[in-house]
Amino acid sequence: MKTAWRKVPGSVCAPCGFKAAAVFCDIKRLGTGKGSEKGKKRDLALIVSDVPAAVAGMFTANQVCAAPVKVSAKNAARKFARGIVVNSGNANACTGEQGRKDAEEMTRVAASVVAAVYDPRNGKRKAASAVIDRRYRKIAANEFLVCSTGRIGVPMPMANVKRGIADAAKHLTRSPGAARAAAEAIMTSDTRRKEIAVEFKMGGVPVRIGGICKGAGMIQPQMAAHATMLGFITTDAAVESNQLKPALESAVAQSFNRITVDGDMSTNDTAICLANGQAGIEPIEQDKEEYGRFSDGLNFVTRQLARMIVEDGEGVTKFVEVHVKGASTYQYARKAAQAVANSTLVKCAWFGEDPNWGRVMDAVGYSSAKVREEMIDIFFNGAIAVQHGMASSTPQETLTEVLRNKKFTVTIDLHLGSAEYKVFTTDLTPEYVKFNMGE
Amino acid sequence: MKTAWRKVPGSVCAPCGFKAAAVFCDIKRLGTGKGSEKGKKRDLALIVSDVPAAVAGMFTANQVCAAPVKVSAKNAARKFARGIVVNSGNANACTGEQGRKDAEEMTRVAASVVAAVYDPRNGKRKAASAVIDRRYRKIAANEFLVCSTGRIGVPMPMANVKRGIADAAKHLTRSPGAARAAAEAIMTSDTRRKEIAVEFKMGGVPVRIGGICKGAGMIQPQMAAHATMLGFITTDAAVESNQLKPALESAVAQSFNRITVDGDMSTNDTAICLANGQAGIEPIEQDKEEYGRFSDGLNFVTRQLARMIVEDGEGVTKFVEVHVKGASTYQYARKAAQAVANSTLVKCAWFGEDPNWGRVMDAVGYSSAKVREEMIDIFFNGAIAVQHGMASSTPQETLTEVLRNKKFTVTIDLHLGSAEYKVFTTDLTPEYVKFNMGE
Repeated sequence: MKTAWRKVPGSVCAPCGFKAAAVFCDIKRLGTGKGSEKGKKRDLALIVSDVPAAVAGMFTANQVCAAPVKVSAKNAARKFARGIVVNSGNANACTGEQGRKDAEEMTRVAASVVAAVYDPRNGKRKAASAVIDRRYRKIAANEFLVCSTGRIGVPMPMANVKRGIADAAKHLTRSPGAARAAAEAIMTSDTRRKEIAVEFKMGGVPVRIGGICKGAGMIQPQMAAHATMLGFITTDAAVESNQLKPALESAVAQSFNRITVDGDMSTNDTAICLANGQAGIEPIEQDKEEYGRFSDGLNFVTRQLARMIVEDGEGVTKFVEVHVKGASTYQYARKAAQAVANSTLVKCAWFGEDPNWGRVMDAVGYSSAKVREEMIDIFFNGAIAVQHGMASSTPQETLTEVLRNKKFTVTIDLHLGSAEYKVFTTDLTPEYVKFNMGE
Repeated sequence: MKTAWRKVPGSVCAPCGFKAAAVFCDIKRLGTGKGSEKGKKRDLALIVSDVPAAVAGMFTANQVCAAPVKVSAKNAARKFARGIVVNSGNANACTGEQGRKDAEEMTRVAASVVAAVYDPRNGKRKAASAVIDRRYRKIAANEFLVCSTGRIGVPMPMANVKRGIADAAKHLTRSPGAARAAAEAIMTSDTRRKEIAVEFKMGGVPVRIGGICKGAGMIQPQMAAHATMLGFITTDAAVESNQLKPALESAVAQSFNRITVDGDMSTNDTAICLANGQAGIEPIEQDKEEYGRFSDGLNFVTRQLARMIVEDGEGVTKFVEVHVKGASTYQYARKAAQAVANSTLVKCAWFGEDPNWGRVMDAVGYSSAKVREEMIDIFFNGAIAVQHGMASSTPQETLTEVLRNKKFTVTIDLHLGSAEYKVFTTDLTPEYVKFNMGE
């Protein structure tokens, strides 16, 4: 069944009951010589739900794991959250005990200032004279999740951060502009904002899913290994945390993780989904048809965001889908695809528009996937380059023609079974190296 | 005990009873548009022992394994060999059944033409009128090993190859010039010949170990994955094949494999050692002191050759030793070292002379080595950059100073045990990418 969704503006603010704001608070401390001088851009954002929202989070598996990741993973386990505070310019990683305290302080400050300017019962801005019901006056620190991205090993400039959070809280609004500002604030080496929202109907009621993400320009399958991937999804569907988690996991596995090598994760990778139920529909449950429709929408949003990450590759000239099929197991398909998509030499050849299928064969051969050389066929788009493990009769010029495209697919058929895997990657260019030679 | 060896000229021809020759026979078929036009250089070599020599070989573990590798592995299992025929310009990989026939044909032609110009009883060139003892007139095809390196998937131009082998056989001599020509003939993207020989005494008798190798300019730890590594070692020591094999394995593990990621091997990687006993010493056995001295010499030769490969990196500006210590197991030390030495972003930072230890921490963290973030110390040469998983107080300028060197060591102390591992690698440069964008 195809879900009929349409794109709508506003990304994380498109779903009812979500507000956002973003400010510049100089987290890189420009001018002190401590940070790079990539310009004064917004570097701190808040995303807040008017009411407690079900939360699901996925976090880096890196053993060197940033302080905010540890704090957010703990807080996400509470199953309900009010919002996310996120900064760029500093990853708060490898910052020890002080880093943990700083991450917690960020949640505490966010909870406090948001509560102070915000009526937590209904998300309305407080009138200056409002008499606050004491039961609602406070938002607990652990109702906030915290994310950071930027340079590793630098202490958080907490005075700036706290000022920024207080400043942002005052500007919380539900508007496409606020969502756009948040999408901008999380950018590091990204050259473009990455945001999307869709709307579809459930039982006649419009439901929305919105998202923003960042993934640095330095794109390759290990992207998430180094250039932190942050993804924030909001929805006004009603989904409980324990139903939301598998939907998010499945969506991430088919999107962000398709541009990532297994186990190669940055210190800060995070994907968070908040579902606040403000659309006014019945709770979505896993055994219902609605769950499938919701998951379809979530998959679409995350896939579009992942595609934006690949397309924003610094210095990249080719977008390549590596499709391994005919594998005897899913794991083998994945390993073969990732070996090819990761091969430095394969990616250099793509940059040079050289089909060089020998490098593809070599990568398939040294991957830990089970293969039989004489069974392998390789296609560049529709053109067969390798048949039974040997050069096909396709003229070299035909293959080169495919490589001249900005986007193409390399299909590797192992002819050993029916498992398959797709991964999205890019070429490797001199500009990539130049871009990454400094911070 | 330290073995007193001295370097001597002649590489593979330095040991008694070895001859070499190399010719240009146009294996790339220049001018036909089938091969690259890197110029007319020697592309076929013979290395021959006057008498049957004990042989040990190590071959790629790649499942996509070139035809000559299959043939040589089979022939090396016979434990005795007379010589090696090797070509550059064509890898004879992914060439199917015809490729296997061609590789076997190369051994057959080599054995036949070498026997025809060579008195196999004593290695002397035959007089035109010599009456040949029929027992010695023939060398069996399987007494030859065959190696190929170059482009994958192109049929071997056998007419050229056969002409080249016959031509080379006529020029077999024991001279530094012949050894140098062989070292040149196996080069592909290498910019320099790689050859060495040492001499040391055993019981007062001089013994020699010589070697040549090639490893393409495209150097990184996956070097052997893509740019075939070929290494040929000769010695006039008397070592039986079953004693020679462990010595070679140990030497390769400490040299060529230190610049190679585990399992990442090319379709053609090969290391071969021939020991012909012509020095006139007693056979070396594993339980004797002489075995240790022989192994030391072999280790020195292979380490020097491996170092030459790293130093010949195309477009490379830095030579970096990554030393992981304090690991709880050897495997963990190896995995952590290889993750760092393999990290595209770490290598880009080195090119930019940016210490960026955060990228090193990140790579250590996502490696499958067991680590505890707060235990990790990282040094650039003597300067501590990371202490207890956090920034040390070393000024950034001090670290940058280290990175300005052409050679430096990154030491990562995990403080979890006593296992260690070293790997030699380079930076990643725009020139590397440009070099590898074509064949």
